[in-house]
Amino acid sequence: MSAENKVFIYDTTLRDGAQAEGVTFSPVAKIHVAKMLDSFGVDYIEGGFAASNPKDMAFFKAIKNETLKQAKIAAFGSTRRANVKVEEDKGTAALLEADTDVCTIFGKSWLLHVTEVLKTTPEENLAMIEDTCRYLKENGKEVIYDAEHFFDGYKDSPDYALRSLEAAVRGGADCLVLCDTNGGCMPNEIFEVTTLVRDRFGVAVGIHTHNDSETAVANAMESVRAGAVHVQGVINGFGERCGNCNLVSVVANLNLKTDKTCLADPAQLKSLKSVSQFVNEQANLRDNQRAAFVGESAFAHKAGMHVDGVRKVSHSFEHVPPESVGNDRRILISELSGASNVMEKLIEMGLNNIDRKSPEVREILKMMEKQERGGYVYESADASFKMLIKKVLKEHKSFFELEGFRVMVEKRGKNAPCVSEATLKLNVNGKRAFTVGEGDGPVDALNMALRHALQEFYPSIRHVQLADYRVSILDPEEATAAKTRVVIESSDGENTWGTVGVSENIIEASWEALVDGVEYKLFLNEDKK
Amino acid sequence: MSAENKVFIYDTTLRDGAQAEGVTFSPVAKIHVAKMLDSFGVDYIEGGFAASNPKDMAFFKAIKNETLKQAKIAAFGSTRRANVKVEEDKGTAALLEADTDVCTIFGKSWLLHVTEVLKTTPEENLAMIEDTCRYLKENGKEVIYDAEHFFDGYKDSPDYALRSLEAAVRGGADCLVLCDTNGGCMPNEIFEVTTLVRDRFGVAVGIHTHNDSETAVANAMESVRAGAVHVQGVINGFGERCGNCNLVSVVANLNLKTDKTCLADPAQLKSLKSVSQFVNEQANLRDNQRAAFVGESAFAHKAGMHVDGVRKVSHSFEHVPPESVGNDRRILISELSGASNVMEKLIEMGLNNIDRKSPEVREILKMMEKQERGGYVYESADASFKMLIKKVLKEHKSFFELEGFRVMVEKRGKNAPCVSEATLKLNVNGKRAFTVGEGDGPVDALNMALRHALQEFYPSIRHVQLADYRVSILDPEEATAAKTRVVIESSDGENTWGTVGVSENIIEASWEALVDGVEYKLFLNEDKK
Repeated sequence: MSAENKVFIYDTTLRDGAQAEGVTFSPVAKIHVAKMLDSFGVDYIEGGFAASNPKDMAFFKAIKNETLKQAKIAAFGSTRRANVKVEEDKGTAALLEADTDVCTIFGKSWLLHVTEVLKTTPEENLAMIEDTCRYLKENGKEVIYDAEHFFDGYKDSPDYALRSLEAAVRGGADCLVLCDTNGGCMPNEIFEVTTLVRDRFGVAVGIHTHNDSETAVANAMESVRAGAVHVQGVINGFGERCGNCNLVSVVANLNLKTDKTCLADPAQLKSLKSVSQFVNEQANLRDNQRAAFVGESAFAHKAGMHVDGVRKVSHSFEHVPPESVGNDRRILISELSGASNVMEKLIEMGLNNIDRKSPEVREILKMMEKQERGGYVYESADASFKMLIKKVLKEHKSFFELEGFRVMVEKRGKNAPCVSEATLKLNVNGKRAFTVGEGDGPVDALNMALRHALQEFYPSIRHVQLADYRVSILDPEEATAAKTRVVIESSDGENTWGTVGVSENIIEASWEALVDGVEYKLFLNEDKK
Repeated sequence: MSAENKVFIYDTTLRDGAQAEGVTFSPVAKIHVAKMLDSFGVDYIEGGFAASNPKDMAFFKAIKNETLKQAKIAAFGSTRRANVKVEEDKGTAALLEADTDVCTIFGKSWLLHVTEVLKTTPEENLAMIEDTCRYLKENGKEVIYDAEHFFDGYKDSPDYALRSLEAAVRGGADCLVLCDTNGGCMPNEIFEVTTLVRDRFGVAVGIHTHNDSETAVANAMESVRAGAVHVQGVINGFGERCGNCNLVSVVANLNLKTDKTCLADPAQLKSLKSVSQFVNEQANLRDNQRAAFVGESAFAHKAGMHVDGVRKVSHSFEHVPPESVGNDRRILISELSGASNVMEKLIEMGLNNIDRKSPEVREILKMMEKQERGGYVYESADASFKMLIKKVLKEHKSFFELEGFRVMVEKRGKNAPCVSEATLKLNVNGKRAFTVGEGDGPVDALNMALRHALQEFYPSIRHVQLADYRVSILDPEEATAAKTRVVIESSDGENTWGTVGVSENIIEASWEALVDGVEYKLFLNEDKK
């Protein structure tokens, strides 16, 4: 790694990320995330706001008991208040109390904020910046200066914005971070202003962007191209409003698309997907299916021509190899896809000996098209598609026969609870199984009855859980008489698989998907034998 | 609007958007989306792939019966196959059969694809491009040429990539669209290559980007800055893999951040949020809370200093005014949010005498927030929101009391029909009404029983029809025990109104929405008296 090409990654998941609507980290989660970020190889971890939050101060204490490989912990705060000596400023004292190697302080670059929000004078604001930087430097800190609203301030008054940076430089700041706090800038503005600042001061320049214009990652990349050597952001890009710059994409782009390096060990790029998932888990957020590099769909191919292309030359429809970021290629089944997708599934099922142009493949495609016209979709219901293939190839068998079910939902009065109960009659290998299930709703009750009936005959069913349940109404204009499509995801702790059912009756559609899900598992067991 | 600054918006939600994992549009949804896009003011609507999909061909026929304001419908296809006369090429024939004003064809710019995927010669590929453009022009079409993988092809062999565009120009193409098909480019590459192409050919240049590097919107913006006058993308940015360029953000950025204009009527920008929600609903996708411009969180302020700043000067922490894109500012953990919306509803209900700062308005907001935390949304359920207001203001009354219902779904054997039956007991003005309903599913049966019970007492109920029925599962990870939200749209032929219900039990959630729908109608009748 050439020092010249090094870009420092400054992670603010635990501070600016925690400003996101719906995100809070528990104290334990903060430690987990910090240790994971260190292993991943970021340079700085901003732990929180020293002055305003006792939980954040507790984090600074707790993290000192952990051994980190290389990441430095940064405490976040602001310049001293107006008309107060820096030695007597409570916020600055809290920064020192946090006892970190690095202090990051933000100050105002935009006159509007100086006069209308802070309600102080332009000159006092400059003194606040200079004093606070100097005082922290005198106390042995590495000082990162976040120039809040720098781009907006520069557009309003270039002279004042630059003078605010000069004040930080005079105070001894180690890095000047240009912040697009409101996220309104276009990439070319970021490039121009970063270039100008880089040329003017002999101090490292950093960039902090927000995603309000959906350009946060590009803005950071353009700033680096203009000479910034420090990028601030959040893993998965959540944060105040539309979120912060997504470090997942920045790290991947820098490593794979430029001559820059940014992780302590570049091999860690392969853990990118698991880093993303870990942070979402700790923040209690859903993974974004379409996230760049790390999403479930990031290397999923649906169109027939794309599938055909990827099979011939993998990079024909992939900008980077999925394994470089710890992700996988996936081939989806849909009405837009053709024989290539079917071939891929056959190979997954170990059926390598069926020719692409065989009558079987043609028959599978015909059945699939018929089902899709009836409202089925197979892209999230791989297991139902494999059951369909087995049926066409006459390799399917039933593990049980339905004799009947009855599902009842009852409510006795406006404020009474709504009770759901299902009775089920199956014939399993000649024996009759009668069961009753209760649940939070009719489908839940039916699922309980089914699992109850089968586990005596097929004990592995005990481990199968429903992991996801989705309902779509196919022709909403026909209201409650419309067709219903149910997609169910099942899991046995090791594998997950999706199944689909369609009917005018939501209970019947759910039953169909439940049955496919159970049969798929039972076939899996047989294949293992 | 100066013609010089016009950027043409080419929407491919119904074609490239439909390539997204998890997205399929019903035939009715495609017509709805196309009409909405036309009202919104896009210039081109790509309706689908003429050759490969009978559903898409059905769309081209159906849309001819609709009157559009200004948008042109485009049929998508490819250059002719290798070594086939264009007059005899099936795909090209399908493009003509679609009978649209515009045909968009993609061709290969990257030698890798020519030799390894198409398996033809570089010269034959050029002939395919030229022939197909010329033939479509001879048949009176506006021809848009999508240069697939143009940037990757240009990086590999600038000479060949440019020769492929020359072939399109010789064939008479009206617009050369540079495609970053794999989504791997950085903004500066897009800018440089667009500049070069713009300077070289006397033909309009367009841009088509993908979001695999999380830079699709920025890439489109940089291309426009370099002279592109045509932008292709998808509302909400879904599409193959990580998705297409998000037209929501492009349209907002062009209108609010540059001197370009791009909507037939710029005032339509105020409908941006509802356009985004409508498309998600039709595609059965969840709204992205953090979406730029239109997300629920896009103008939500959580940090104390930001809230303070916004109160003092709204643009201190907002890059554009929320109302410019039809969104709202939200102050989190505060009852001040949404007061304007409530005021608006009160005025709609003829309650003009309630002050914005009154305890009643505060109470309504508190109730609304409580309900929203419980999973209710009122965006498409105006009537339920008005019922909520009536309840808070103690102006609500029940037109009937529920004594109980029982819904039963029964299936007697694998191939037997699934029968649904509901029994309902109501108390209507002291009289008891017992009814039974049958239907295609449990909700349909319950709806039949309810209407049957009421029409004796309230004859106007006879005219009420269910017009739409939608189901969302709120916490899919909890599978069938998750909460269910049901949104119902009712109509009496003159007005339509939406209601919402939430419960762990889908039947109970549906009941709640059915009751709100009926009560709203009965209040309407009383107001008319």
